[in-house]
Amino acid sequence: MDINKFKEYNAWLQPGIHECEFSVDIEGAKDTEFATNELVHGLTRLGVEVNDSYGLDNSLQAEGDASNISVKYAYNASISPQGYSLMGEKSTVTITAPDAAGFLYGTYELLNALQLGTPLSSLDVISAPGVQRRAINHWDNMSGKVERGYSGNSLFFRDGRFYYDPERIRDYARLLASIGINEICINNVNVDEYSIKLITSELLPELVKIAEIFRPFCIKLLIAIDFESPVKLGGLKDADPLDKSVFSWWEEAADLVYSYIPDLAGFVVKADSEFRGGPASLGRTQADGANMLAAALKKHSGIVYWRCFVYNCTQDWRDTKTDRPKAAYDNFYPLDGTYHDNVILQVKNGPVDFQIREPISPLFGAMRHTALAAEFQVTQEYTGQQIDLCALAVLWEEFFKSPVRKDCSINDLIGNSIVSVTAVTNTGDDENWTGHLLAQANIFAFGRLAYNSKLTAQEILTQWVGLTFGISEHFAPLVKMLMDSRAVYEKYTTPLGLGWMVNINHHYGPSPEGYEFMKWGTYHRANAKEIGVDRTAEGTGYTAQYDPWLDNLFSNLSTCPEELLLFFHRLPYEYRLSGRKTLLQHIYDTHFEGVEDVNGFISTWQSLKEFLPSGAYESVCERLQRQLANAIEWCDVINTYFHRLTGIADEKGRKIYP
Amino acid sequence: MDINKFKEYNAWLQPGIHECEFSVDIEGAKDTEFATNELVHGLTRLGVEVNDSYGLDNSLQAEGDASNISVKYAYNASISPQGYSLMGEKSTVTITAPDAAGFLYGTYELLNALQLGTPLSSLDVISAPGVQRRAINHWDNMSGKVERGYSGNSLFFRDGRFYYDPERIRDYARLLASIGINEICINNVNVDEYSIKLITSELLPELVKIAEIFRPFCIKLLIAIDFESPVKLGGLKDADPLDKSVFSWWEEAADLVYSYIPDLAGFVVKADSEFRGGPASLGRTQADGANMLAAALKKHSGIVYWRCFVYNCTQDWRDTKTDRPKAAYDNFYPLDGTYHDNVILQVKNGPVDFQIREPISPLFGAMRHTALAAEFQVTQEYTGQQIDLCALAVLWEEFFKSPVRKDCSINDLIGNSIVSVTAVTNTGDDENWTGHLLAQANIFAFGRLAYNSKLTAQEILTQWVGLTFGISEHFAPLVKMLMDSRAVYEKYTTPLGLGWMVNINHHYGPSPEGYEFMKWGTYHRANAKEIGVDRTAEGTGYTAQYDPWLDNLFSNLSTCPEELLLFFHRLPYEYRLSGRKTLLQHIYDTHFEGVEDVNGFISTWQSLKEFLPSGAYESVCERLQRQLANAIEWCDVINTYFHRLTGIADEKGRKIYP
Repeated sequence: MDINKFKEYNAWLQPGIHECEFSVDIEGAKDTEFATNELVHGLTRLGVEVNDSYGLDNSLQAEGDASNISVKYAYNASISPQGYSLMGEKSTVTITAPDAAGFLYGTYELLNALQLGTPLSSLDVISAPGVQRRAINHWDNMSGKVERGYSGNSLFFRDGRFYYDPERIRDYARLLASIGINEICINNVNVDEYSIKLITSELLPELVKIAEIFRPFCIKLLIAIDFESPVKLGGLKDADPLDKSVFSWWEEAADLVYSYIPDLAGFVVKADSEFRGGPASLGRTQADGANMLAAALKKHSGIVYWRCFVYNCTQDWRDTKTDRPKAAYDNFYPLDGTYHDNVILQVKNGPVDFQIREPISPLFGAMRHTALAAEFQVTQEYTGQQIDLCALAVLWEEFFKSPVRKDCSINDLIGNSIVSVTAVTNTGDDENWTGHLLAQANIFAFGRLAYNSKLTAQEILTQWVGLTFGISEHFAPLVKMLMDSRAVYEKYTTPLGLGWMVNINHHYGPSPEGYEFMKWGTYHRANAKEIGVDRTAEGTGYTAQYDPWLDNLFSNLSTCPEELLLFFHRLPYEYRLSGRKTLLQHIYDTHFEGVEDVNGFISTWQSLKEFLPSGAYESVCERLQRQLANAIEWCDVINTYFHRLTGIADEKGRKIYP
Repeated sequence: MDINKFKEYNAWLQPGIHECEFSVDIEGAKDTEFATNELVHGLTRLGVEVNDSYGLDNSLQAEGDASNISVKYAYNASISPQGYSLMGEKSTVTITAPDAAGFLYGTYELLNALQLGTPLSSLDVISAPGVQRRAINHWDNMSGKVERGYSGNSLFFRDGRFYYDPERIRDYARLLASIGINEICINNVNVDEYSIKLITSELLPELVKIAEIFRPFCIKLLIAIDFESPVKLGGLKDADPLDKSVFSWWEEAADLVYSYIPDLAGFVVKADSEFRGGPASLGRTQADGANMLAAALKKHSGIVYWRCFVYNCTQDWRDTKTDRPKAAYDNFYPLDGTYHDNVILQVKNGPVDFQIREPISPLFGAMRHTALAAEFQVTQEYTGQQIDLCALAVLWEEFFKSPVRKDCSINDLIGNSIVSVTAVTNTGDDENWTGHLLAQANIFAFGRLAYNSKLTAQEILTQWVGLTFGISEHFAPLVKMLMDSRAVYEKYTTPLGLGWMVNINHHYGPSPEGYEFMKWGTYHRANAKEIGVDRTAEGTGYTAQYDPWLDNLFSNLSTCPEELLLFFHRLPYEYRLSGRKTLLQHIYDTHFEGVEDVNGFISTWQSLKEFLPSGAYESVCERLQRQLANAIEWCDVINTYFHRLTGIADEKGRKIYP
């Protein structure tokens, strides 16, 4: 790759190619017009001169320097939907697919292979997505601000209205399609006074234009709606899902929306959650609410993403019976099997809220008769806010490999009960989309894993580094640094599954008791002797929400994964971990180590300077320095906190402030 | 008093009178036109029918039911400025004064006497203010929001412009004049993009109208200015006070301001404070900055209130040498004697920031050659936010009685080095001005004490209750409740001078370690064994900023006032207080007691129901219930915090949550 052509804006679609000593013939097929366009676009980007004979017949002559390669598109209905095969044989590459999406994904795979210098004759890929729906949610307000956004303002909105550069949105669509994302919700689930009107004739003509940009990339729009729209927009007295007038209102609203955007994927709903209205406030169930909307969307083949982030956000800290991680299961599990088949319950990966370490949500194992979406947070709200490096692929790989019961992992549910993988995106209008350049790896990894949840973080991050900075063995340390970054962030922040020692509201930096007496249900209840919440049968009973095998695994101190120890158990500081180290000493050690590790990241990055574009080098240097300051702050605050509380010194005599 | 005529809006100027069986003749004198107007206005309010023969000759016949009383105004230049005498003899009351302000204050005193049923023949008052300047600062932003305001929005501004009801402002001026306030700054010391223009021809014509309303009430305007105005408005490269072009800019600005408002009192300045610009950022001293502005105002007889709230607000919590209470002294004391005589240094009562318990600022004793203003916070930022009852007169009385050295108290400095008493007001556009009806007692007490710092809280609060609710022995418990309220608030919040265990940003409710690791310099550094900061010579050395006699008093554990113990000393929880109780047990006890005391307030208030206007009764009931919830929250959080930290149980076995 020619690093002089590198632009952060291009993300993993950088110009330059390793071996482009050939020209390309393209032979199109049914539904390949856009895919061939993208192939031409991609070849051009990669430096292959394209013959302008490419025309309506979807065939193309592209002239390179030396040999000639044919790319043939072939239709085959027997391949899984959105899947493809990519086969290289001598000088011919054949992309076979059953639909436009498959052709598109095969095309991007081919372009990636070219960029990575893979010998084309060796191509032998058969691929199909694990789930048919791979969605991102933007938490963009129409004001232009992005809730929990760390990469500038909204790509779509400003000052209460649509405001965007269509070319940039097209580039964005390409980035998303190239990693297999096929649904997008551009407005925040916390719907505001402006975006509530996205389902009205006032804003739909504007939304149509966005849909038109995404459509050829096989990406469908979702709209985040306000459950109380019938009241706020329709003037009805309430939004009771069992009230026929409410249903009629939604039916009409859906008819209107689909008259503008016939291929809309559906609605996303945050109801009964963090002060938002919903069916519970009217004495109805979550199923009543979701099914009513689903019925209104049914004839349009629309679906309802119904978020399961329902919990008591006005908890009394004195109440030790209520345990927030139990809330989603308690609210949704009893209704399993009663949801319409076009309802998808959107479940966060863990039972709390995107902490650096959580067990899987028990809903994944429990809900056997309901369509589920697994939701991740690509935007780094609790994981460094795109200042600190934290490659989330590692966390997500763990999630997919987590058992839900004996001999069954999340991966085994993919394409079965889990029909969608979704995420809150980390993208905004910063020139490089994600603020921290290396945070591009997170949206990339999300798309990759949503499409194929069995990929490893190592594979994905290696590929991302190759596509972004070029293929070179010099970059092995960079891949390692990314691979390590989640564990490092965990080391210097909260240990052993504790979570929530963050500053309130903005959630960056340490405040060990910041949430301890608040109403959010997030308590570690540390005292001078012990810390953590007993969530076993002897405690809050949370573990009973898992399959008995898993309950037993978590409940038993000898089998509970050590990194989750304080999520499930309350233990004295002098408890001995498996390595015979005390829990407190582990906390001290990991915090000091975390700081050292960040220093190591800085060294690693500096060692790569000559191989990196200078702008990118500098911008990441600046983020790493800020990360180091944050890591030191976390280390010192957490260590001082525990030292003050316990009076126990660090065994190694390192500096802990009084 | 007729409780049916009671309106919260009237505050201490309620209608109704105890004995109005007489009519009044008024005989005016030089400079009494407005005072006689106010007398007529007041008599009318009190139910005395006023004869309309009152005219240009300043004499008036007002007809009552029975006997006749003459009110004579007499000029006497030998009375202290703004002072008056009020003498009753048989059927004549004589108000003697040297100026319009004196006549006005004498008039209000007479009206109060009538309202309180004082026999007029017994009147024998000679009065003069302790300081010539008694100012309130509004922290009103031109957006209409009030910084740290708990009683609605601004009385003066909305949406970036002037927006007010002139009648209401007139009523407000009367309330302020009736308690002796004679200077007002209507814009926030944190000057914003709008209010920076109050010194320009764009906004001065509007400000003139406000000045015109206040002027007859002998209240002069102040303007809070932005030290960086020469840059932000004038386009100069910096605001260096030693740069002649900067001085010229300010001279021109002052000339312009005084051409509009010739009697403007002067400017208020928050410089080098909490991220605001100032001379220090340019390598200049506070005196350089203040004197430059003073020179620009000199020919107009204007003064500069220069706030001393200068400290490092980006402190590192790890730094145990820097001690925020030392900052004001360190910044200002070395420059004592170098300030121009029209500079007044505005010093907060305590060295930190309006906590419920602080020692006096060491600047009061130290600065012997500089004019000072003592600044209070009437708005209850840290003292209950006009939800919790906290009669601050008690705190202020203590302040004035505090020694600055042996045989010299703050009171002895009044009228000497202390030339002004100022406060951040608690008033806003709520119908009753102060949100909590009983918080009216705070602005009332402030005015009273600013005029006469030797009044006791008991005297002031008794008078306030009488003027507001009527004279009745039934109200003795209400006066007691007010008198107790400061101590009660202290009991259930932070003990022994600790302060700062509040929730961050909004400052209501408990967060024991909310500020512990932040940059504001406010640390208690509690660990499992001990708490507090040693500010003696063995510690940060703060006490050396006091006179040696006072230093010794604070430094010695046996003489340090117990209520300030943890402000000055770091002590183990098992330290025995004078009553042999441990420090920790004292904390537990006071917190439980505080809750009980609030319950007692509720009982007291309920017992007065029949004597109170029903609206006022209900509104205070509602606040007291919220106070009770807050007191319980404080009690439980603080007790749990210390119990977790120490593991030491309450000796009396009361409920402390785990």
